Amino acid sequence: MLPENLLAGQMMHRPLRVGDILEYAAEIHPDGEIVTAAVEGGLHRATYPALRTRVARLAHGLRAMGIGAGDRVATLAWNTQRHFELYYAIAGIGAVCHTINPRLSADQFTYIVNHAGDRAIFFDSTFTPLLEALWGRMPDGLIPVELCAPGHVTAHTIPDVRAYEDLFEHSDSFDWPDFSEEAACALCYTSGTTGDPKGVLYSHRAMVLHSLFLMASAQSTYRAGNRILPVVPLFHANAWGIPYAAPLAGCSIVMPGPRLDGASLWELMNGEEVGTAYGVPTVWLGLLDEMDRRGAVPKGLREVVIGGSAAPRPMIERFMADYGVDVIHGWGMTEMSPVGTLSALTARMEKWPLQERIDLKARQGRRMFGVDLKIVDDAGSRLPHDGLATGELFVRGNAVVSGYFENAAASISAFDAEGWFATGDVAAISEDGFLMIADRTKDLIKSGGEWISSLDVESIAMGHPGVANCAVIAIPHPKWDERPLLVVQKALGTDPEVDELRAHVGKHLASWQVPDDVVFVDELPLTATGKVSKLELRLRFKDHAIERTPG
Amino acid sequence: MLPENLLAGQMMHRPLRVGDILEYAAEIHPDGEIVTAAVEGGLHRATYPALRTRVARLAHGLRAMGIGAGDRVATLAWNTQRHFELYYAIAGIGAVCHTINPRLSADQFTYIVNHAGDRAIFFDSTFTPLLEALWGRMPDGLIPVELCAPGHVTAHTIPDVRAYEDLFEHSDSFDWPDFSEEAACALCYTSGTTGDPKGVLYSHRAMVLHSLFLMASAQSTYRAGNRILPVVPLFHANAWGIPYAAPLAGCSIVMPGPRLDGASLWELMNGEEVGTAYGVPTVWLGLLDEMDRRGAVPKGLREVVIGGSAAPRPMIERFMADYGVDVIHGWGMTEMSPVGTLSALTARMEKWPLQERIDLKARQGRRMFGVDLKIVDDAGSRLPHDGLATGELFVRGNAVVSGYFENAAASISAFDAEGWFATGDVAAISEDGFLMIADRTKDLIKSGGEWISSLDVESIAMGHPGVANCAVIAIPHPKWDERPLLVVQKALGTDPEVDELRAHVGKHLASWQVPDDVVFVDELPLTATGKVSKLELRLRFKDHAIERTPG
Repeated sequence: MLPENLLAGQMMHRPLRVGDILEYAAEIHPDGEIVTAAVEGGLHRATYPALRTRVARLAHGLRAMGIGAGDRVATLAWNTQRHFELYYAIAGIGAVCHTINPRLSADQFTYIVNHAGDRAIFFDSTFTPLLEALWGRMPDGLIPVELCAPGHVTAHTIPDVRAYEDLFEHSDSFDWPDFSEEAACALCYTSGTTGDPKGVLYSHRAMVLHSLFLMASAQSTYRAGNRILPVVPLFHANAWGIPYAAPLAGCSIVMPGPRLDGASLWELMNGEEVGTAYGVPTVWLGLLDEMDRRGAVPKGLREVVIGGSAAPRPMIERFMADYGVDVIHGWGMTEMSPVGTLSALTARMEKWPLQERIDLKARQGRRMFGVDLKIVDDAGSRLPHDGLATGELFVRGNAVVSGYFENAAASISAFDAEGWFATGDVAAISEDGFLMIADRTKDLIKSGGEWISSLDVESIAMGHPGVANCAVIAIPHPKWDERPLLVVQKALGTDPEVDELRAHVGKHLASWQVPDDVVFVDELPLTATGKVSKLELRLRFKDHAIERTPG
Repeated sequence: MLPENLLAGQMMHRPLRVGDILEYAAEIHPDGEIVTAAVEGGLHRATYPALRTRVARLAHGLRAMGIGAGDRVATLAWNTQRHFELYYAIAGIGAVCHTINPRLSADQFTYIVNHAGDRAIFFDSTFTPLLEALWGRMPDGLIPVELCAPGHVTAHTIPDVRAYEDLFEHSDSFDWPDFSEEAACALCYTSGTTGDPKGVLYSHRAMVLHSLFLMASAQSTYRAGNRILPVVPLFHANAWGIPYAAPLAGCSIVMPGPRLDGASLWELMNGEEVGTAYGVPTVWLGLLDEMDRRGAVPKGLREVVIGGSAAPRPMIERFMADYGVDVIHGWGMTEMSPVGTLSALTARMEKWPLQERIDLKARQGRRMFGVDLKIVDDAGSRLPHDGLATGELFVRGNAVVSGYFENAAASISAFDAEGWFATGDVAAISEDGFLMIADRTKDLIKSGGEWISSLDVESIAMGHPGVANCAVIAIPHPKWDERPLLVVQKALGTDPEVDELRAHVGKHLASWQVPDDVVFVDELPLTATGKVSKLELRLRFKDHAIERTPG
């Protein structure tokens, strides 16, 4: 019901804008800094007051280029200080920072730059070959800017490339425009497995609120003085909100640049005393191996935030049991700005025995303030949060997408009648609020009328010492409709056998849920966001014959 | 400038409402609780899940009483669980919780209940005599509810008084209405020194944002598991935001009820392991004396937040140097929801020597995220933040008043041409963002064309061991226009003399700034919010003859 006689409060209504975050950080957290492992090598440092000045100078440069309110400006860049500066300068003048995933296919890349109608593109020198190859397919009038010092431009086949550092004008302050908190500040396309990528258009209000919600919910991370390393890229889903939330809280950011192997990360984290590191599971396999090799945790490392894909329990156990590093398991989506849930425990749970805490951490966590979750059955009716009922997960909140950019068709199908966003995940929610993702709706395997969760099988298979990484996909089957196939990347120096792996899975699951076959690959194919590409695996193994009778 | 071609973001717009805070606390921080030193004695406990249920039941009761959206509902109550429940149940149905300061004069009390147009009044039994005496002057149809168990009503001369616990209906859930974040949720009148009290009408948006801003800025306080004791009353300026921010962060609240003397507070804090306690300076004098007497800090006490009036440096020193308890000095106003600044230090400053940190803490602190500060000269021009320039302080922000409730005259004069709120304080702001309140505009003393800060003189006088509390007021003077008079409440067991105190002040200030005379009082008169009433002192000493020639 909507009450009719409401009394309006009499408080100022100031627009929530991301520019206010950097202003605040420069004033209140002047010791905070961005440290960058530069693309060209070496470490570069800048404090928030210095960054405020650089962002003001860059904003003058953007204006001089003809960039105005509402314009989309593309970035094709690693995690660096310059990328951070672009976030704030572009948003500050009312334009839209369109971060592009460099791992997209040529067709997807071309599609989104044209679909977004980008006016300029800022790119790291690493991506010069990529951009040169596709330049002919870019929109007319796109202004190319290489993220480099004057005289260091490498993109010689593209006409009129400017050097980033040439844009900086000499005025140290900028008269930032006043505009509504509903204005867009950023744009990110999701690399969907079907159809063209879809654009999520973030508003200033959503970004500021998402940052504030993180303050309330990720308390162990967002404390003044903490040093945060985002391995999660700034080109994807706002790097989980770190570029906004870290300066607001007074945390420093350590930007890893392009070198994301375990040894490089270990060295950087150890030298910079990173307290919290964010990344997808595959990244942490590399770091853990490096920690094993050295027998040491990088100095200062307190916690690792794992998201993007479900964190396998053995990985959580290695961090927590072997090394005493806490794990925060997160779940979210590009469409959610992106954080939905975090596995911070209650004070009471923190006193539980280690193995029970690891069990909790293997779940996806509990909702961040400002995010509402519901699970529904096939008819759309709400299911109880009892840890048992499993249904499609819908979300709602101030940092959740309300439609896709210039894509009415995709927008219509993404929401239910109550206006909640359909995540495409299948999940249960426990009585104490823990989200347990069962699977992606499209990753479930239907065998003889029963569902098999590929995620469950993968999680168990990962516990076998011979498995470095794995994926379970559905193979068409004449009798059972679909049957599971386990695709395994072997751990270094191991040589597990098919029956050994099947027996391992069979110890934990019903016999009909055990994959009928196991195939070994040198490397699992990854999507542009670093997740295992089941789409590609399904294509590769679509004719794989299943001989065995299940059960 | 306002950009014309802005692109609107495509994110959901969910109203920010205070009811979402308790819902979140019940789900994510189920161990959090409210502990109340009950008015009738003993301790009472309720967890956030239990409180969510009680608030739902109370909301049914309010509806059954005929309370609807936009209605004002008065409270006349101590810091208790029931008062907390009223905050949420009233706001949840779209009505407005009007907290009344029981120390107001009879005329002021009568004025505000009638001005607010309250539909009901909820009162602690302590206030039965007060309400009985004034009942004839209350508005027609005001529904009286005593905060007590069934059968324990004491207000027998008031017709049809209901017992609070009788209102609770048996449905454990409530279908909370949907409404705009701009709706009013609370109302608090400021006890101005001139004219009638003025009403500040808080919106849901302002309260939620104020809570989130506190998460970002008061990081040492708002951590899950911390236990917060508000000596600051719930009837005044939202108890500095604690009733909203504490559940959001997962902190418990220890409510002291009516017993606020040093010994009672020490016992309660020690037993409940309070980590953070909030109060005005006078309250902490009592606690410090009790700590001296016992030679012990209450168990678990980490920090004390001091606001309401400037915290004297000697008080900060006693906490920090003698007892190792950190001090957060805060500044704010009812019109600011109320927090403006907090003296949290930067990581670098935390490493400074103790005496230098105490010097920083003696300032009012740095701005909370979401609060903008400016100081201006008499012509309204902005002054630099250089620690030297002193001017009238103006503020702006999402939790700052935009006008007074049903009071157009007061609303017009409270804002400057840019729409900033005039605080009535005179201040400097240092380069590193510390606010240094010089005085209230009306508390400055103008002597021979020069200003004397009563606050400076008071702060120095408080450093004399013979001074328990003091105030400096202006006395009219034929030659010098005004001259300062120091009014002193002696410390127990001491007997300082006039010349001794004058000499003490003269060691730190110019001779013409030294009060010409000192008078001793048994007890300083307090305003309804516990500050020293300079208005009353000015009246009492208006004919006090100043004989001495200054300088």
